Parts: sequence; structure tokens; C-alpha cells
Amino acid sequence: MIRPQSETDPQCTFETMYVAVMDNIFLLVLVTLLSVVQNVFFALKVEKECTGQQPKHNSAAFERLSCANRNCMDTYPTFLAVLWCAGICLSQAPAAFAGIIYLVVRQKYFVGYLGQTCQSTPGFLFGKRILFFLSLMCVVGIINHLMLTYGGSDYKEYIQTITKAASTLLLLP
Amino acid sequence: MIRPQSETDPQCTFETMYVAVMDNIFLLVLVTLLSVVQNVFFALKVEKECTGQQPKHNSAAFERLSCANRNCMDTYPTFLAVLWCAGICLSQAPAAFAGIIYLVVRQKYFVGYLGQTCQSTPGFLFGKRILFFLSLMCVVGIINHLMLTYGGSDYKEYIQTITKAASTLLLLP
Amino acid sequence: MIRPQSETDPQCTFETMYVAVMDNIFLLVLVTLLSVVQNVFFALKVEKECTGQQPKHNSAAFERLSCANRNCMDTYPTFLAVLWCAGICLSQAPAAFAGIIYLVVRQKYFVGYLGQTCQSTPGFLFGKRILFFLSLMCVVGIINHLMLTYGGSDYKEYIQTITKAASTLLLLP
Repeated sequence: MIRPQSETDPQCTFETMYVAVMDNIFLLVLVTLLSVVQNVFFALKVEKECTGQQPKHNSAAFERLSCANRNCMDTYPTFLAVLWCAGICLSQAPAAFAGIIYLVVRQKYFVGYLGQTCQSTPGFLFGKRILFFLSLMCVVGIINHLMLTYGGSDYKEYIQTITKAASTLLLLP
Repeated sequence: MIRPQSETDPQCTFETMYVAVMDNIFLLVLVTLLSVVQNVFFALKVEKECTGQQPKHNSAAFERLSCANRNCMDTYPTFLAVLWCAGICLSQAPAAFAGIIYLVVRQKYFVGYLGQTCQSTPGFLFGKRILFFLSLMCVVGIINHLMLTYGGSDYKEYIQTITKAASTLLLLP
Repeated sequence: MIRPQSETDPQCTFETMYVAVMDNIFLLVLVTLLSVVQNVFFALKVEKECTGQQPKHNSAAFERLSCANRNCMDTYPTFLAVLWCAGICLSQAPAAFAGIIYLVVRQKYFVGYLGQTCQSTPGFLFGKRILFFLSLMCVVGIINHLMLTYGGSDYKEYIQTITKAASTLLLLP
């Protein structure tokens, strides 16, 4: 959150503010765009399965893909919400990193889905650890904000360093 | 929207702006986090029902829970969108209050769901009144913004007071 | 992004910043509200079909409407995400315009849905062109931001003019 702009350009207009805001969200926007591309990829997979195949074994495969897609879509707003809240409340780099790992996990989930009608092997709710990490980031960010407002002490620098280190733990399988 | 910061600290850097922005959204972030926890709770319930039970009466109960979960998830992005728009356009405290009531209604809906294949007793779309209230807040906020821009008059203080009073009406059953 | 406020009122408080931010998002909020109204309209249609009709041909029609509604809801978070990212990263007017066209396309999709169990005529994923346009706006906005940060050149004015012109191309059938 340390802005070079505020040092070189101490007077503050809407333009400099806008640049500072963009600096703090453009990684989140990139991750959001990637997730949108993935969503479209999933939807096209389902559509192709639905229209293109011979009607014999169509139904089961379509059912599977549709179910995987629905599970992914059901958790998508939740993911977006915690991603953006964590990025805004605390720090965008670890949040975006966790977001990218979530997208990788989701890709694996979709591809590896073996699918009976109720979601068998890979679990109904994937990426719990990542969602938990992002939620924790939000909570820490809010607690820090409240401490700053009512107590006057700001540990944001330390917290951001710890968060960056902790986000690499998400790489553990 | 009256910031103590802007009085005690008249020069404006990115830091003070960031604190001011956080002041105006942290309740919304908290409600969003609560809703995420609730989403995860719903998903775990469905997953438990899906895997844990004996296969006899599994199907009907799973169908019910899955249907309730889907209805909740279908309206979730709508809820998040109006919650944040209302909180940003007008005032965060009544928006967050309405959001918490929405979460309580959703919990009741999920627990009390009796569920045939099409959504019987508690209605397909719950919390209409709360969504309507939040939408109204957005509209009022935008109208006030346009009046401020083109007419020069700012009734925000009055509107916020009225909104806070009106939000208690949501407690009526 | 040129603010009259910053010329008439060069010192910058939270109030003027708030007005400037509202100036840059109120069209997005309006489109979001419209989409929420449409969502509620869809949900009420499904609910009416579910409860009101005679039980004979109820099931097929309900299945169709429910499927159309689910397809609309599945892409809704994706739409909201690219709409807001495009509006914030680049320019709100073309983004809001594209958003309104998307809502029209969605209305046509919902009404014209003929629906077998897998989504027949109007396609599973509608409005691809609009989502692509909005994603492109995000990418262009981020590239421009990076060029501004690392290269010092700002083409935002030109890009916004081009975007406004390009957004009219979405009107082509």
C-alpha cells in the first residue's frame, strides 16, 4: 500500500488516486479475467458435449459434465467475493496468488470429475483451504483496520509480509 | 460519510483515503464473510447428506437439500450485488443490517425447506422484501447523486437518517 | 475520467473523492439494478409456473423454464464480474451500454427458450460476443495502466474514444 505516487506527487487529484487504486486492484482484475475465461471454457465443454455427440452415451457424460460445471458455478460467486474482499482489505498479491491456485484446483476438479449424480471422489466443495485462507485475510484486514481506528497502532506492514510468506504454504498438496 | 479524518488531517494522501474507504466498507465485508461461511455450511450439509447416509432414503433427502442449496446459490450473486451497490451508493450500516437479516431469512429457508421437486412451502424466491429495500437504497442513492451533480442540493444526511429508521422495519415479520 | 470537480475544487477531501467515484460507477450500478430486476422477473416466472398451473403439462414447462433460469443464473456472476472490471478499468459508459445489450439478449434467450433437457436452439452460453467485448476492455485497461506505470505514456483518452465507437458494433445482429 506504499505508493510511489504519493511521494513524487504529493498533491492529490482524482487522476493520481485512480492510478493508485488501479495499482491495488489490477492483479485481482487479471485473476477475475482468468476465471471468466475458465468459466467460458467449462460452458463450451458442456455445450459441445450436449450438442455434438451421438445420442447413446451422451446422457451420462453430459450429466457428469453438467454436474461438474454446476458445482464450479455454485461456488464461483463465493470465490469472487472472498478474493476481492481479501485483496482490498489486506493485500492484493497474496490474494491474487491464492486465486490462481484456486483456478488450478478448479481445473483439476473439472477435468478429473468422475461424477455420479452426487459428487463422488473429488468432493462437492473443492478448494476449501484456499477459501479459508482468503477469508482469514479478510478477517485480519478488518481487525487491523479496527485497531488502527480505535487503537492507533498499524501492523499492516508486518501482516502483509506474513501473509505473503503464508500464501506459499498453499502450494503444499 | 462524514469523515473525522478529513477534519483532523486535511491533507489527503493515499493512506488516509484508504482508511476512509475501509471505514465505509468494512461492515459490508463482514456481512459478505458471514454469507460465505453460511454458503460453506450449506455446501457441507449437502456433501454430508450425499456421502454419509444409507442409500435407501438418501435420494429424496439429498434431492431436497440440493434443491434448497441451489435456490440459495441462485440468488446469492443478486444479493451480493444489491448489498454492495446499496452500501456504496447510500450508506453501509443499513445495508449491512439488511444483509444480516437476509442471512437469517436464508438460514430459516434452508432449514425449514420441505421440498418437493418444485419449491413448495417457503417459496422459490425468499427475502424479496430485503432485496427490494436494498434496491430502493441504490435508486435513492443514485437519484441523490444526480441531484447533487446537476441541481447542487445534497439531501444525503436526511436520506441516511430516514434509511436507518426504515431499515428497522425489516424486523417486522 | 476527466473530473470537473478537480478543476473547480482543487483541494481534495473525502467528499469530492466520493462524488468523483460515484460519477464513475453510477451507470454500472444502474445496469446492475436492471439485471437484478430481470433476475427477480425470471425467478417469479419460474415460481408462477411451478405453483400456479394444472399438474398435467406442468412438469415439462417447469423443466424448461427452470433450465433457462439456471443457464441465466450460471452466467450471471461472470457477467457482473466483467461488467464491473471493464467499467472500472477503462470506462463506464461503453461497459454499461454493453451490459444493457447483454440484458436484452438474455431476455430474448429466456423468452425464446424452447428447451429440451440439454439446451437446444439458443445455445447454452449466450452473449459470448458481449462478454468478449467486456473482457477485451479489461485487458486494454490493464495494459494501458501498466504502460502508464512503467512507460509513462497514457493513451486512455484515445482508447476510450475507440471503445465508445466500438461498442456500437455490438448493436449488429
